[in-house]
Amino acid sequence: MKLIYTGKTKDVYALEDGNYLLRFKDDVTGENGVFDPGANTVGLTMEGAGKAGLRLTKYFFERLQEKDIPTHYVEANIEEATMTVKPASVFGKGLEVICRYRAVGSFLRRYGLYAEEGQPLDAFVEVTIKDDERQDPPISEDALDMLGILSTAEYKVLKELTRSIADVVKTELAAKGMELYDIKLEFGRIGQEGQIVLIDEISGGNMRAYKDGKYVEPLELTRLMLEG
Amino acid sequence: MKLIYTGKTKDVYALEDGNYLLRFKDDVTGENGVFDPGANTVGLTMEGAGKAGLRLTKYFFERLQEKDIPTHYVEANIEEATMTVKPASVFGKGLEVICRYRAVGSFLRRYGLYAEEGQPLDAFVEVTIKDDERQDPPISEDALDMLGILSTAEYKVLKELTRSIADVVKTELAAKGMELYDIKLEFGRIGQEGQIVLIDEISGGNMRAYKDGKYVEPLELTRLMLEG
Repeated sequence: MKLIYTGKTKDVYALEDGNYLLRFKDDVTGENGVFDPGANTVGLTMEGAGKAGLRLTKYFFERLQEKDIPTHYVEANIEEATMTVKPASVFGKGLEVICRYRAVGSFLRRYGLYAEEGQPLDAFVEVTIKDDERQDPPISEDALDMLGILSTAEYKVLKELTRSIADVVKTELAAKGMELYDIKLEFGRIGQEGQIVLIDEISGGNMRAYKDGKYVEPLELTRLMLEG
Repeated sequence: MKLIYTGKTKDVYALEDGNYLLRFKDDVTGENGVFDPGANTVGLTMEGAGKAGLRLTKYFFERLQEKDIPTHYVEANIEEATMTVKPASVFGKGLEVICRYRAVGSFLRRYGLYAEEGQPLDAFVEVTIKDDERQDPPISEDALDMLGILSTAEYKVLKELTRSIADVVKTELAAKGMELYDIKLEFGRIGQEGQIVLIDEISGGNMRAYKDGKYVEPLELTRLMLEG
């Protein structure tokens, strides 16, 4: 087992059978010690964050599997904080796909002239480039196609998958009395045909969930979802 | 004749017949005394810039008229540095539509991870919000529709018009030995049916033109186009 990549919140190992192993770390993104799912820097380390993130990811990836929504998920080992996944190649150097139900975060920072904080949004999907140096700029369908990152046909699949996945998460959260404000997903291509599948994780680290008008921290989200 | 708006590069007056009069000023956008068509601040005053901008605008708007491309243009008075236009309402609080043939400026600042400086782009169209406070953020077709700024059907018209107009300008410049790198246009709705038309101006102040690999300043652009 060979370490091939050290990420902000995960390490990636190559397995002998061609699959990969993700090890979830206790580091979460944020700034100045405050958790922020939209941040590009590791802001703090929270004991148990890795396992909590993995538990929720396992839960959601298995729900998606039941609904035949394609993901890179193979299996998870909570004790080891590891998840086995199929090999996937990302689009370009990596994209983030955001689905928004409320105007908060970077959406509000960009479109505050037209949107009020917390205003409902109709499962609005947008794509940003993973590029820390340039603060993850948003990119349009046309630009993705022109720059050879994602074809127009793939964009349509990506958008539909994003909405389906976000809807599953939103519904699951609602059943526990929480509201999903937004969620950030990553996708990749797998297999010879380049099927588009969800990769990475689904946990408190990449969504904003609220309960009784109050933001739910990542560890608390896992607790409310799986032990509530 | 009543002054109703003082802009960065123009003043706007209401005429008795319902039309508007734009007075072109000698102020141009830029920063620290250096001209930049993408800037939000008036960077410098160049004697004759207003008339030069108007002369080129008149020239291009009349070429568009010949090609039945709709604009708000009625007539121009070069001596007075004024242009009479039909009343138009802008989309939301104003949008800028950019057509790009080369990767420079804000495109490169955003997508430098995937594009090299000066790389050819295939008449790439993007829309930004006029919002000085938020540095004119780019906005997608979906977001424009969702925020009630521009419908998806209108977006298609806007994109086609932008490409047609940019192509006219590019061809005219090429005939004078210049290359158009990018151009920034503004549109509005006129009449009961809300027909989408080009508004504002087409001059050196809202495009980047190059000759023999060297940037052509706005005043020089007018000279090369109309006196060359």
